Amino acid sequence: MPFTIPQRLIQLRSAMTTHGYTAYLIPSADPHLSEYLPARWQGREIFSGFTGSVATLIVTQDFAGLWVDSRYWSQAEIELAGSGITMMKIQSAAASAHIEWLAQQLPEQAVLGVDGNILSLASARALQASLSTKHITLKTDFDLLDVVWTDRPDLPNAAVYEHALPFASVSRGQKLTAIREQMRLKGANWHFVSTVDDIAWIFNLRGADVNYNPVFVSHALIGIDKAIIFLPLAKVSQELAARLAQDGVSLQPYENAKQALQTLETSDTLLIDPRRITFGFQQAIASSIKVIEALNPSVYAKSRKTPEEAQYVREAMEQDGAALCEFFAWYEQVQNKEAITELTIDENICAARARQPHYVSPSFGTIAGFNGNGAMPHYRANLESHADILGNGLLLIDSGGQYLNGTTDITRVVPVGTASPEQKRDFTLVLKGMVALSRMKFPYGTYSTVLDAIARAPIWAEGINYGHGTGHGVGYFLNVHEGPQSISGAIPNSDMVMEIGMITSNEPGIYRPGKWGVRIENLLLCVPAESTEFGDYLKFETLTLCPIDTRCVDLSIMRDDELAWLNDYHQMVLQRLAPRVQGDALNWLKQHTLPLQK
Amino acid sequence: MPFTIPQRLIQLRSAMTTHGYTAYLIPSADPHLSEYLPARWQGREIFSGFTGSVATLIVTQDFAGLWVDSRYWSQAEIELAGSGITMMKIQSAAASAHIEWLAQQLPEQAVLGVDGNILSLASARALQASLSTKHITLKTDFDLLDVVWTDRPDLPNAAVYEHALPFASVSRGQKLTAIREQMRLKGANWHFVSTVDDIAWIFNLRGADVNYNPVFVSHALIGIDKAIIFLPLAKVSQELAARLAQDGVSLQPYENAKQALQTLETSDTLLIDPRRITFGFQQAIASSIKVIEALNPSVYAKSRKTPEEAQYVREAMEQDGAALCEFFAWYEQVQNKEAITELTIDENICAARARQPHYVSPSFGTIAGFNGNGAMPHYRANLESHADILGNGLLLIDSGGQYLNGTTDITRVVPVGTASPEQKRDFTLVLKGMVALSRMKFPYGTYSTVLDAIARAPIWAEGINYGHGTGHGVGYFLNVHEGPQSISGAIPNSDMVMEIGMITSNEPGIYRPGKWGVRIENLLLCVPAESTEFGDYLKFETLTLCPIDTRCVDLSIMRDDELAWLNDYHQMVLQRLAPRVQGDALNWLKQHTLPLQK
Repeated sequence: MPFTIPQRLIQLRSAMTTHGYTAYLIPSADPHLSEYLPARWQGREIFSGFTGSVATLIVTQDFAGLWVDSRYWSQAEIELAGSGITMMKIQSAAASAHIEWLAQQLPEQAVLGVDGNILSLASARALQASLSTKHITLKTDFDLLDVVWTDRPDLPNAAVYEHALPFASVSRGQKLTAIREQMRLKGANWHFVSTVDDIAWIFNLRGADVNYNPVFVSHALIGIDKAIIFLPLAKVSQELAARLAQDGVSLQPYENAKQALQTLETSDTLLIDPRRITFGFQQAIASSIKVIEALNPSVYAKSRKTPEEAQYVREAMEQDGAALCEFFAWYEQVQNKEAITELTIDENICAARARQPHYVSPSFGTIAGFNGNGAMPHYRANLESHADILGNGLLLIDSGGQYLNGTTDITRVVPVGTASPEQKRDFTLVLKGMVALSRMKFPYGTYSTVLDAIARAPIWAEGINYGHGTGHGVGYFLNVHEGPQSISGAIPNSDMVMEIGMITSNEPGIYRPGKWGVRIENLLLCVPAESTEFGDYLKFETLTLCPIDTRCVDLSIMRDDELAWLNDYHQMVLQRLAPRVQGDALNWLKQHTLPLQK
Repeated sequence: MPFTIPQRLIQLRSAMTTHGYTAYLIPSADPHLSEYLPARWQGREIFSGFTGSVATLIVTQDFAGLWVDSRYWSQAEIELAGSGITMMKIQSAAASAHIEWLAQQLPEQAVLGVDGNILSLASARALQASLSTKHITLKTDFDLLDVVWTDRPDLPNAAVYEHALPFASVSRGQKLTAIREQMRLKGANWHFVSTVDDIAWIFNLRGADVNYNPVFVSHALIGIDKAIIFLPLAKVSQELAARLAQDGVSLQPYENAKQALQTLETSDTLLIDPRRITFGFQQAIASSIKVIEALNPSVYAKSRKTPEEAQYVREAMEQDGAALCEFFAWYEQVQNKEAITELTIDENICAARARQPHYVSPSFGTIAGFNGNGAMPHYRANLESHADILGNGLLLIDSGGQYLNGTTDITRVVPVGTASPEQKRDFTLVLKGMVALSRMKFPYGTYSTVLDAIARAPIWAEGINYGHGTGHGVGYFLNVHEGPQSISGAIPNSDMVMEIGMITSNEPGIYRPGKWGVRIENLLLCVPAESTEFGDYLKFETLTLCPIDTRCVDLSIMRDDELAWLNDYHQMVLQRLAPRVQGDALNWLKQHTLPLQK
């Protein structure tokens, strides 16, 4: 029988006394700064009971608080009940609220503990700066959970496999050569990588250590003529290890990574990415080593899909679109005949994808939200809480698949019964924003905040806005959220410039809390537009292929040029998906790609 | 007979030897970091012969170079001929090219001289950082030109006068109270101001020390219960001095300003704006004083026009529009009958404005550029070089007036003979951009770079761009270029957020070097749009009133909604200007505001 949260906290507090901590902090993080955490690093959930993806737990002898942003307030209120943990609401743009609390509440000379191996450099620096005035010690060299979390899971042990030809069109040898060229330009003879999507990409390897992202827990150290991957050795077959060895890649136990950093030579120069390494690993670097801080070369390289990769992604999009035609055809047939819930939607959409070739898994947890549930951008239905699809309103479905030949992510909204004029207006405003960005042509170097605003402008024009970015980068059979680019209103920096070959989502929305939500999402490939006397211009190719429900379009606010884009898009969708579907799915496709006329 | 440039350089080099300088730098600047320099600080022009507004002169014993940006390359080539000065071309985005040159070319232990009183803090810091590695001394406490420029002009001596009621609707007492409240909030009991538009605004005073901007050379020191203006005392009448004294404002000689900073008490706290004070004055502050660096409070305050000021500006815009109707009516009558040149345009447009009530002066030098001359955004015709308005093409006229009730700035392009389809297309693309920004609604806090892109998007869509910002702030009977806001593609900062009451230009363009230029410019007032559950929204009221020449519009690329905006605008222009013009001007107005139909 697992421990209760109060029991866990008693154990933690006892160990804190033994080890001399005034307070202990458990972030939602792992040594790889990943989005999805292996069970071994779900300490924040285990010691708080809160199952949301992001929060910070702080425990002292007489207080325990969980800092939670507004997305999760209602969920945390339920999950923290009876735990003895206080929910600390983070107001928007106050991500450091827990640091301010520590600076105010901890006494002079206190000792704050946190596992440095899972603490980002930025967090460590913010803690140090804030706590130094009260002479509070930040102790990061010990993972207290190792002592008190007696049933702590081991490292995940899913097998590592090769992302092979034809889909991995660039060999690991070529990738290593390119990374070593970047190291040479920066004057580094070693490069340490902790981020698991970078490692998967560099070595053309994939895993299944966490949900949705096909990655495996590991660090890597790349030198001029050799490279080492640190991971549980049993996860790699002898055959694969031999193939890696042919490329000068050796394997060492996961635990050896830090020691490898500690034993670099004084004459070495090490390249690290300060936003992609934890404080604990950065501290492990011998102070005699010269360190160069820069974006991991692989971050840029993997964001720019090669022409071959882009072509495979186009095929993946056709498969994905065909799966969606089958799903929607099924949905229209059973609607008003069978009981459908948000969970049935999830099951059937995943099943339709699973019938496609090269399918691996969903690329994230399906968001199927009916009416008010659709107004929560990060909603997830579960067995205890989900809605029946009944009556009138809007059903929002945000889903995606991992295929060996690409990663998909698409949001569509369909009417249930009759959509109201207000719902159609919101749908059409979001569509206008989505279309505006899809059609955008812009000079190389344009800031992301500009592209973000292009999608928002038609929505702003009605005094409406949405509280998330317009787009995120997407990997190639890799993470569905991948940098460095994004399309958001954040103050831009030069790492974020849109480059040819990048895949980015285009997903404006409108959310009416408790009523309905609209989001329409296509993936875009950045491609050259033209080079003129005024410079180089870029544009987007829409990759995602699936009808946009024209029953929700309010024609009175669609401009002719916007309507023309929609009809052209539907013609392309029909042409490319028709060869891949039959029967009801084909009929559904034909019916939902009919041109719309004013 | 004035000295020749080679004679000037001989004198300068001789003095450099006497005073121990390896190199001497003369920027285009004065102690107030003004746009227009009084003759006393036109040393860069006097010692180089180059008459453009911006450049940097560096002289060593065996070299003299003038760093010039691309706007001025052709002009500098002509003006530097025979001077012995080398033109050093600054590539775009390399504003510090001369600093790099110094760091490379000067020997170790060299001494670089520059008058610190006219050196911006940013320039001083860049010089220090760059030269320190070679142990080069930056000597800034001596103005070598005082020694060698024997015919150097005195301080300007134009009379200072009051900007009076009703147009100065906020008294200087109220303004000083508001500034002191800002000082109190920041913990300062003194505030030093060097920027002459800030001083003119704070004290409701105006002058005529430079062209176009109604300002007077001065510094000011504001305390909790008194304020001092440092200026040549003879410029202020006894009556005005007495009125100032009633508001606790005393006058001291211009030369006393630095000493006043040097003699502040140890317990004092001084507020300065690091971007609006020179290095020399900052260095004069006693090191024992606590210094708070922030935007001058008056910069924000004067940028936000009061409702009364906005109403006076609307009247000024009607006067200005009426003057333009008279000018254009004259122009159409004499076209093809009299010889017209770019200079005649300038004379007649200024004369038309001068007939309006409350007129003071032009707000900048008229840019009247025919065909290829219009492709130079900063073109200025002169007696030696100007074009006749003959044949076919486009005439670009950018002009403005200073009125006691507001500052205007407007650009219009009119066809001469027949405009070609390519010219009409460029005109229409610029119009589309101008209209898009005019109609924009956006949440409070939107970055300027977003607004900039809204105007550019229709131009980008054709692979075209323009090399200047879309808009600059405009003063209220003050500088035609005023901050803190601007509408440009620069990386945004929080000082630049658009606030209610700000007046900003909207002037996209397309320039075809050697062929023609198009720019269409209106001034916009930022006003509230609406407050919704999603936040506070802003929009623009178009202030400028003058027909946009519909003969240049290519209807095939104008959308219906864009055309509707243009027709609505022309209806407003007709309604508001018709009561102010008669005869030919009224006929011209009626004819040029007829609705355009597809």
